[in-house]
Amino acid sequence: MAAPAGNGGPVANGSVDKNVDFANYFCTYAYLYHQKEMLSDRVRMDAYYNAVFKNKHHFVGKVVLDVGTGSGILAVWSAQAGARKVYAVEATKMADHARALIHANSVEDVVQVIEGSMEDVDLPEKVDVIISEWMGYFLLRESMFDSVIWARDRWLKPSGVMYPSHARMWVAPVRSGLGDQKMNDFETSMSDWYSFVNDTEANYGVNMNVLTKAYREEHEKYYLKTSLWNNLHPSQLIGHPAIVKEIDCLAATVDDIRDVSAKFMLPINMERTRLSAFAGWFDVRFRGSIQNPVEQEVELTTAPSIDNSTHWGQQVFLVHPPLRVDERDKLMVALSMSRSKENHRLMDVNLTYELQLSSGKCLKPVATKYYIE
Amino acid sequence: MAAPAGNGGPVANGSVDKNVDFANYFCTYAYLYHQKEMLSDRVRMDAYYNAVFKNKHHFVGKVVLDVGTGSGILAVWSAQAGARKVYAVEATKMADHARALIHANSVEDVVQVIEGSMEDVDLPEKVDVIISEWMGYFLLRESMFDSVIWARDRWLKPSGVMYPSHARMWVAPVRSGLGDQKMNDFETSMSDWYSFVNDTEANYGVNMNVLTKAYREEHEKYYLKTSLWNNLHPSQLIGHPAIVKEIDCLAATVDDIRDVSAKFMLPINMERTRLSAFAGWFDVRFRGSIQNPVEQEVELTTAPSIDNSTHWGQQVFLVHPPLRVDERDKLMVALSMSRSKENHRLMDVNLTYELQLSSGKCLKPVATKYYIE
Repeated sequence: MAAPAGNGGPVANGSVDKNVDFANYFCTYAYLYHQKEMLSDRVRMDAYYNAVFKNKHHFVGKVVLDVGTGSGILAVWSAQAGARKVYAVEATKMADHARALIHANSVEDVVQVIEGSMEDVDLPEKVDVIISEWMGYFLLRESMFDSVIWARDRWLKPSGVMYPSHARMWVAPVRSGLGDQKMNDFETSMSDWYSFVNDTEANYGVNMNVLTKAYREEHEKYYLKTSLWNNLHPSQLIGHPAIVKEIDCLAATVDDIRDVSAKFMLPINMERTRLSAFAGWFDVRFRGSIQNPVEQEVELTTAPSIDNSTHWGQQVFLVHPPLRVDERDKLMVALSMSRSKENHRLMDVNLTYELQLSSGKCLKPVATKYYIE
Repeated sequence: MAAPAGNGGPVANGSVDKNVDFANYFCTYAYLYHQKEMLSDRVRMDAYYNAVFKNKHHFVGKVVLDVGTGSGILAVWSAQAGARKVYAVEATKMADHARALIHANSVEDVVQVIEGSMEDVDLPEKVDVIISEWMGYFLLRESMFDSVIWARDRWLKPSGVMYPSHARMWVAPVRSGLGDQKMNDFETSMSDWYSFVNDTEANYGVNMNVLTKAYREEHEKYYLKTSLWNNLHPSQLIGHPAIVKEIDCLAATVDDIRDVSAKFMLPINMERTRLSAFAGWFDVRFRGSIQNPVEQEVELTTAPSIDNSTHWGQQVFLVHPPLRVDERDKLMVALSMSRSKENHRLMDVNLTYELQLSSGKCLKPVATKYYIE
């Protein structure tokens, strides 16, 4: 045998086992290494810092709830901006570190760290602000926004505001060498497999060829159909991005975000090039509410950027084989995304795309299932 | 946020949650990629192949139980060697692939694949042979031998034999550049942390220094105290290995293997060198039983080797700082290994070593806790 340590993975049934979810998901956030990675993301940090300190009127004398406080930084900032009380909820043992950080930064009279799942926590009062950094890859991976919605419905005053207040998912057509590289990896891996089948028959008298189809499927999924993390260069965009989902954080329900489906058109704006992938990313904005707007709006975008890349990067969905496209061609795209049956924090994405040439001719639509793991 | 997918990790309490265990452990074995890695290990494959086919008298007309059949190869061999019936038990969906393999190799009349945990499975009869490849890193990682013991006590006839029949754990003193490299990684990581603390204070008004101690501990554990997988060259051994545990697979109980403790002496047999680590590995032997011995004994060793390295390699426990040693010095070592409280398939190892110089002088003993993850 000899298996690598705890590799996560599917559970037997569709319902959520809290212990399994903890083992698979929350544990990652119990490492300071991972916290440091997020705290070193300048785009992320600047956005939240500016959102709080340029809109102090939302915090001065107010009660704040930080959902998933991690190291506690958003709670410290909320207190420094003048909050009367901050409840900082954290499911992992990181709560101990948050407590230490809050004490070391002299805001322990304002911030109360509560270790527990948001859904299990009891607060002594309703809150004016919910602040949370809940966004996963392509916005919804991790399904953490569910807990923020839960917190909002249970604990936010009717006049309360959400930080961030709005979120959007984007998709764009891109060119990239990643797909060629992954196709090469896939082919090498299949070639290894065929040698292995021959060797096993020759040396040990067992014919493994019956597993070739399953091996191919496993590796196609791994190399070609699982979205890739990448920080794309803006010059890799070969057409305008489209918004595939808009979320009002004050109004959205879990039903609104459980499944995402959108039809949209992506115009190609580059001469004779290759569509080798679709890229997905998100932005969030801090706008307060209509009744209670911010003084200065702040945006956090994870779009391809030269100077402002984030730890989220973009999710890249490879197109095999790449499609020759030209300026004024159009891609008609249908996207649907739902949660993986095996792990509700991962996503299955169906993408169907049809190329309409500038001549008016339409190519046959291509449908591919992708996995955000 | 943005966490990598399912990373396994600790659970809240000490008892074993079967669903968590499945998510953390078994899922790995549901990938053909991982099966191929094991099936490509020639040392492993040759040992089991020879053990079966050079001792056909143990299989001809007999009933065999294969615990954790994986792809099914040991079950196929058992059938090819003449077994009357083979029960091949597998906890993961790999059972489907095993069934296909067994059919493709025309042994479906003999081999019955049963999907389920060994502890939950009901067989229609007792068996003459239990065959299993249950060994993890440093033999006992994964704690899979528990299931083999359970199967033996419940299903093996009194006259039955175990394949393998014996196992041993070994430790040796080694020289290696790995420790310097890891110490360098650790120091780089701490230096990054100090920059991060300064930057966070300067840019965002939050003092993170209170977390420095915890960050250091987390990273010491990761870089310096977690045993490393390595295939050592035999010339890296600087003294004779010692046996720290012997297991008779026919007699051992779970109590016998739950905790391992041993005191032993390691003589240095190389002139002026450095003790930079201890290496741990195992071997297993196929000897049958006293009443029912094999015709030809086979050994599978994972010791450092030039031509016969295995996918298990050796586990390397780093010594910081390295110790200057000389020929005829002796290391007096006490080792104790127990299961991790957070995950019973991982191990905590305490190593205390005291150098006795050839002059008779003794250096102060050093005690270090290591983790096999």
